[in-house]
Formats: sequence, structure tokens, C-alpha cells
Amino acid sequence: MQNYKLTICYDGTRWRGWQKQGNTDDTIQGRLERILSRMLEQPIELAGSGRTDAGVHARRQVCSFRAEGAQDANIMLTELRKFVPEDIGILSLEEAPPRFHARLSCTGKTYVYRVWNSASPHVFRRQYCLCRPGVLDLDAMAEAAQALCGQHDFSAFNANRQFKKSAVRRLFAADLEQIGPELRLCYTGDGFLTNMARILTGTLLEVGEGRRDPAGMGALLESRDRSLAGPAAPAQGLFLWDVYYDGEERTPEKLRAAYAAEPDCFF
Amino acid sequence: MQNYKLTICYDGTRWRGWQKQGNTDDTIQGRLERILSRMLEQPIELAGSGRTDAGVHARRQVCSFRAEGAQDANIMLTELRKFVPEDIGILSLEEAPPRFHARLSCTGKTYVYRVWNSASPHVFRRQYCLCRPGVLDLDAMAEAAQALCGQHDFSAFNANRQFKKSAVRRLFAADLEQIGPELRLCYTGDGFLTNMARILTGTLLEVGEGRRDPAGMGALLESRDRSLAGPAAPAQGLFLWDVYYDGEERTPEKLRAAYAAEPDCFF
Repeated sequence: MQNYKLTICYDGTRWRGWQKQGNTDDTIQGRLERILSRMLEQPIELAGSGRTDAGVHARRQVCSFRAEGAQDANIMLTELRKFVPEDIGILSLEEAPPRFHARLSCTGKTYVYRVWNSASPHVFRRQYCLCRPGVLDLDAMAEAAQALCGQHDFSAFNANRQFKKSAVRRLFAADLEQIGPELRLCYTGDGFLTNMARILTGTLLEVGEGRRDPAGMGALLESRDRSLAGPAAPAQGLFLWDVYYDGEERTPEKLRAAYAAEPDCFF
Repeated sequence: MQNYKLTICYDGTRWRGWQKQGNTDDTIQGRLERILSRMLEQPIELAGSGRTDAGVHARRQVCSFRAEGAQDANIMLTELRKFVPEDIGILSLEEAPPRFHARLSCTGKTYVYRVWNSASPHVFRRQYCLCRPGVLDLDAMAEAAQALCGQHDFSAFNANRQFKKSAVRRLFAADLEQIGPELRLCYTGDGFLTNMARILTGTLLEVGEGRRDPAGMGALLESRDRSLAGPAAPAQGLFLWDVYYDGEERTPEKLRAAYAAEPDCFF
């Protein structure tokens, strides 16, 4: 059995999220497994770095799978590109060491939430941003975001009520980036709970709109009470932005440099 | 009667173009006239700077209309934004001099055709670009584009076979802009014939792919024969980019400066 690492992107608009649900064909994992199984003439099981909810996009999602027989990764890549629908993009496909696993080997992720903060139209980005035309207090949002960084129990930001395991996660950075009328909330951490990036965003938007005190983040974390945080922001603005496997700690400075190196025109 | 100038943008993907066809509700002109007529409680006729085909987008389209009664343009703007679908954006609405007419007063337009020139996925731009992954000879394309500039009879680039009027137009500039993997073909002229920007693009892409000699543009123009030019490139990559009313000549230098001032993140 050879192990492979597959890197993809997708427009989540019409999908019911990453994780397959029964035999339906409306999840990204389900669709890719079906295509790979037919292509390689064997049942393929795909592990993703993590689930994305229905409607959430991925600029970069990493998966892994094992297959029997000698396959040329470059030929597989070319073939796969022929069979995927146009809202899923195959970025790369390569052989991976036997112990590599997209979820278990993952050491960190960045999520970016895009807010269109203007009354002017956002016609060409409407499927990829949340539109919030009102004035936002960015200083207050940055102060609150800073207070969330570090290692904490993030139970207050976890939508999974049946969750029994530890909700302790390390948020390396939570940065605000302004690109014209667009505000990007960038979260990098070692792991994210259910809806965590969306609840962080909903809470920070309340701070920006003056409906929540930025000094209250410490008490909110300590409460571990989901009902005290803001609502989950809608799925359409959220991108799984990057996935890390090198164990390197992501400082805000390093992340900003990586961010600046990416041409915005990709989107 | 007060005259108004309305500036809009739209994602043309699901529309049957600008121009209304009977009483159907699937053209941009038809939909906007219906909304304005209801809003202002009088029949409104909208003049556009020009037609865009089904599937063609507009970054900036200008229209004009007359209405009875004293209307506050700012209140109309706010109201109108509430009623338009999310793939039409209202950029501005202002009172105009009595003789202003969006089509008759227009002195120039820029069309931009966007080509995604990479084998890597273009998931997030797929509705706004033509995907051409092969190698393109940009120098040959620029040479051919340059030969098309100036005042010519553009009959070879006119899809309207019943056209009886003069096909002489002045192309001020035809520039290639490369932004990462995206190639933009930018055409500015005093007027465009039916499908002209798309046929120019189809012809220049043949040059870029080595299937047509860039030195042949002069003879092609002189032939006035539509069958000798390339095919019309698909609608989805084309944007009506800007519309001019000041009579100022658009030099390539001025256009490039205006182009650079626009943040790419708008798209």
C-alpha cells in the first residue's frame, strides 16, 4: 500500500460540507472518494485534515489516502483534474511517508473569515464574504482578538454540546487584515473546535459593533459557557486557509509575511 | 421631468444580457425598469451605455432615465439597493443635466477580457475567467493587439450580419496585463460592434497559441470579412470595465495609470 498526500481547494457554496454522510454525493469527501475509487479501481478512503461545515470554502485543504499498486502521482493528478467538478480544485498530489495522516499529523491550521465592510456593492465576492456595512471599531476588535490568543479552554466557542474531550486549544494568532473594503479575520491555531472560527468571528463582530466589551474576553473564556459567546457567523465568509504539518510554531510575524507573499488576485 | 444617471455593476452569469426582450424578467434592463417603475410609481425607461451579451459582466455600466416629480437621489439610491438582487450592485445615482443620455453621450468604453492561464485550479474565479492552461506567446499577442489600435473598419470583428451602418471605430488601446496566473486583455475604444471584444480576444488567443501570424492583423482588418477572424471568446470572461463621458482621449499610459489605481481586491 502506498500512502498519498492530496492538496485541494474548493468553493463550498453548493456542498454539504467536507464529511461524507451515508452514500450521498453532496459532500466533498464523498465525491472525491467516489472519483478516486473509480479511477484506481479499488475502494479509497480519504482522511481530511479536518471537517469544514456546509458552505465553508477551502483555499487549501489537505487529505491523505492509501492505494494498492504502483501509481504515478503525476499521472493520477492529471487524471483527477479531469474528473473533479469545477468548484473543486486539485492543487497537488504526491507520495507521502507511510505514517503520514492528514488529520493525525496536522500541527496547525489557519482559518480566514472575510467580511465585506462597506455599503457599496460586493457583487463579485458575495459568495465568499459576509456583508456587514456598518462601522466597525477595529481597535476594539484587535484588542479582543489579542486576548483570545494563547492556550485556553475554548468551550465557550464550541458548538458541539456532546463534546466530552478536552477543549483546550492553542490559538497562535488572531489578526485583522484590511484590504480595501474587505476585513479579514485570520485565526491560526493547533486545532479548532466545532464552529470555533465562526463563533470567534460572531463574537468579535459584536465587539466591533460596540455591543460587547473587548475587556470581557478573559471572563468569557473562563466561563466555558457557549451561551455567553456571540452567534456563529454564517458559513459563506469562512475559508480553511492553510494546513501545517511541520510542527513549527506560527508567530503573528511569520503569518503576516506568508500572507503578504500570496497574491490577492488568487481570489 | 428630471434626468438621472445611474451607475451599476453586475455578475452576468445568470442573466440573458442587458437588453430587455419582451416582458421577461431575465435581463438586467428589464429587471431594473420593473423595480424603478414600481418604486417611482410611473413607467421608467432605462437607457444603457450599450448592450452586454448574455453572461457578460459589468464592473461599471452607466444608464440614464427620466422621472416625474421631485425625487431625492440619495433616498432613491438607498431604496433601490434594497430591491435589486444580489448579483446587481448600485454604485451611484445622481441627477444629470437634461441632455445627458447614457448611450448617445458616451464617448468611450473599456472592455476587459480575463483569461486564467494556468493548469492550476481557478475555482474561485471560474465564473469570471476563461480557462486556457496552455502556453501563450504574450509578445506575439501584444504585437497583434498593437496593430489593431487606431481608426479602422472593424467589420471583420462584427458578429452582426445585418449591420448596415459604418463599422469604423477607433480603438484607443489594446493592452495585455498579467496579474499572477491571470491575463487581462484590455480594450478601450470609442465604440464596440456586436461581439467585437470577444472576437478580438478569440483572434488574439489564436495568435498567442501560434495558430495565427501576428503580422496578419492589417490584412484581416482590410478584408472586412468576419469569417477570417477568430471565434468569439466565451461570454463569461468579459467585463464591461468602464464607460466615459468626458470626450477625453484615453491613451494607453492614462489607462494603465487608472488601472493600477484600482485595487484588485474588488474582484
